[in-house]
Amino acid sequence: MQRIPAHVGDRIEAIETPALIVDVDAFERNLERMAGATKGTRLRPHAKAHKCVAIAKSQLARGAVGICCQKTDEAAVFVGAGIRDVLVTNEVVVPAKIARLAELARAAHVGVLVDAQPCLAALSKAALRSAATIDVYVEVDVGAHRCGVAPGTPAVELARAAAGAPGLRFRGLHAYQGAAQHLRAPEQRRDAIASAAALARATREAIEAAGIKCEIVTGAGTGTWRHELDSGIYDELQPGSYVFMDVDYGRNVPDADDLRFEQSLFVLASVMSVPADERAIVDAGLKAFSFDSGLPVVHDRPGLVYAKASDEHGVLAVAPDAPPLALGQRMRLVPGHCDPTVNLYDFLVAVSHDVVKAIWRVDARGALG
Amino acid sequence: MQRIPAHVGDRIEAIETPALIVDVDAFERNLERMAGATKGTRLRPHAKAHKCVAIAKSQLARGAVGICCQKTDEAAVFVGAGIRDVLVTNEVVVPAKIARLAELARAAHVGVLVDAQPCLAALSKAALRSAATIDVYVEVDVGAHRCGVAPGTPAVELARAAAGAPGLRFRGLHAYQGAAQHLRAPEQRRDAIASAAALARATREAIEAAGIKCEIVTGAGTGTWRHELDSGIYDELQPGSYVFMDVDYGRNVPDADDLRFEQSLFVLASVMSVPADERAIVDAGLKAFSFDSGLPVVHDRPGLVYAKASDEHGVLAVAPDAPPLALGQRMRLVPGHCDPTVNLYDFLVAVSHDVVKAIWRVDARGALG
Repeated sequence: MQRIPAHVGDRIEAIETPALIVDVDAFERNLERMAGATKGTRLRPHAKAHKCVAIAKSQLARGAVGICCQKTDEAAVFVGAGIRDVLVTNEVVVPAKIARLAELARAAHVGVLVDAQPCLAALSKAALRSAATIDVYVEVDVGAHRCGVAPGTPAVELARAAAGAPGLRFRGLHAYQGAAQHLRAPEQRRDAIASAAALARATREAIEAAGIKCEIVTGAGTGTWRHELDSGIYDELQPGSYVFMDVDYGRNVPDADDLRFEQSLFVLASVMSVPADERAIVDAGLKAFSFDSGLPVVHDRPGLVYAKASDEHGVLAVAPDAPPLALGQRMRLVPGHCDPTVNLYDFLVAVSHDVVKAIWRVDARGALG
Repeated sequence: MQRIPAHVGDRIEAIETPALIVDVDAFERNLERMAGATKGTRLRPHAKAHKCVAIAKSQLARGAVGICCQKTDEAAVFVGAGIRDVLVTNEVVVPAKIARLAELARAAHVGVLVDAQPCLAALSKAALRSAATIDVYVEVDVGAHRCGVAPGTPAVELARAAAGAPGLRFRGLHAYQGAAQHLRAPEQRRDAIASAAALARATREAIEAAGIKCEIVTGAGTGTWRHELDSGIYDELQPGSYVFMDVDYGRNVPDADDLRFEQSLFVLASVMSVPADERAIVDAGLKAFSFDSGLPVVHDRPGLVYAKASDEHGVLAVAPDAPPLALGQRMRLVPGHCDPTVNLYDFLVAVSHDVVKAIWRVDARGALG
């Protein structure tokens, strides 16, 4: 595992690189901003972004109703750490995992998604065996074309089955439009969520017309949450990345009235070689960033471009007018995609005014199951 | 961390997904093939590919002279597990890391690269302080344009400084042409290594003409090792990925006389949703594969294409004539790039004839420092 890269009280210069650092002031402003803007609705931040109990507790302390996880094993980490309300925003199919989920539901308020009848039956059996109640949400495909039943009749049928299944409590709809989060133009995001919300609304109405209570419509992410909030149809919001932000979210063109979140997550890297005027090498490569959404970006150093990577090297292109780089010189890099980058580290170093304030363990790192 | 996904003796059907599995028969044939083909030269396999003590020991048992690591903390894991000859194929610049490297050199034969005078001085001081000897190789840029001094005079000057530095032992040149490993056409790879070998040869001759012994030229990777071997100039070969292979190496067009390595590494995944005839979702996404070299490929299931990913989902495009997929159905996927994919897991599940033979810990996972 990663060596603990610093200690509380260290100056930033003492942090061993590469390290994942959080500008804790920007981070806390992000938390406050989202908590303030969503007051009066249910905020259930997605913990897959940070996988960190300390951060989840900060979100709950600011009024979040619970957290989301993406995997049963993530949920196990958070429930084990005392978090009492966890929604697994995913289908769970494998019997061993369903059994573990039911056990978690003895200790905490646990929800899960369904998009197929066989899983409902298995969840119901497991809940009864564990003498627990599991909250169930029907996942509806509102445009992401990932998991989920079609809106309308298929969702009503599954809701009816969920509402009648012993050990389960049908709570409502999961209507996450994941494909809308990174649409670049603000009107694209607005239109995609308008469409998603219309589908969610029609489905909820069809379910309620069938005499089934559909209490909660949950969904939304960092790229679109404002639209879900404004739609009047979403009762609960699930943004995750807003705590950190990344290069890819930075590519979204904001709307005039979009709330801005600050970049709080950085990889701190050191120059390990300056073989030519136009090139320098840093100690953070393919194992220090996730590259699925593109290359990292050098923060606040004009003239430096992170141009390519190998396993443990990042090659910087140095502009002719950039100040020369020295061996051991350090810099911050913004990850292309925050969630899978966090999953590469065992520790987050929380820094304020160049001093290490806390070391947060990435508790659910690697919790794939 | 990852839950242990299986136990020795389990059938493959019992492995919890997503899991990283090794077809141990193909894997051992890969080890044998490389050991056989490099007999008579020094094979020093790169452990950054597997980060696994059990695998390093298998390589040493087949005649490897030692291993390569890419980071000081990786080296610490292997030395701590009893491996007695480790070359860190990288520059180490930060004083704390240099001090740790010197401490490792008390317990094992440890080498490191240099491409700048200040690091030499720091290494020398640290070696003296630890009463250890550190092997030093001058890294020469033979075409990769990453780290390394220019061939010829700059390398001679650094070699002279290394040869004269107390506590250090100048061993030779590191002449790794990383940019040649994934050139697609066989003649491109051959030409690139011919050029690299010519530069390495000229540099060695210049060093020896200066009266400095240049014992070892080390380098090579899975894509080109045969050419370095045939060149007559490389004394030591450092391939790593040959133990596993991946989609990206599979894109290299082989030469007629290239030795073939088999795909031994797979991510075992389960279908978690079949929302439409043309689409299925598996439980392995951006946190289960590294996507830097492209998407994973579904193994041995015609008609299934891994089309896109989100954090914990993989979307499969299902051809009209493909057999229908069922919930919970399992399949093997070939990672786009093996090294950073292995770094996402805590365990490798070694499987032979559908039975789990061993669980190998990815001991140096996350050892970024």
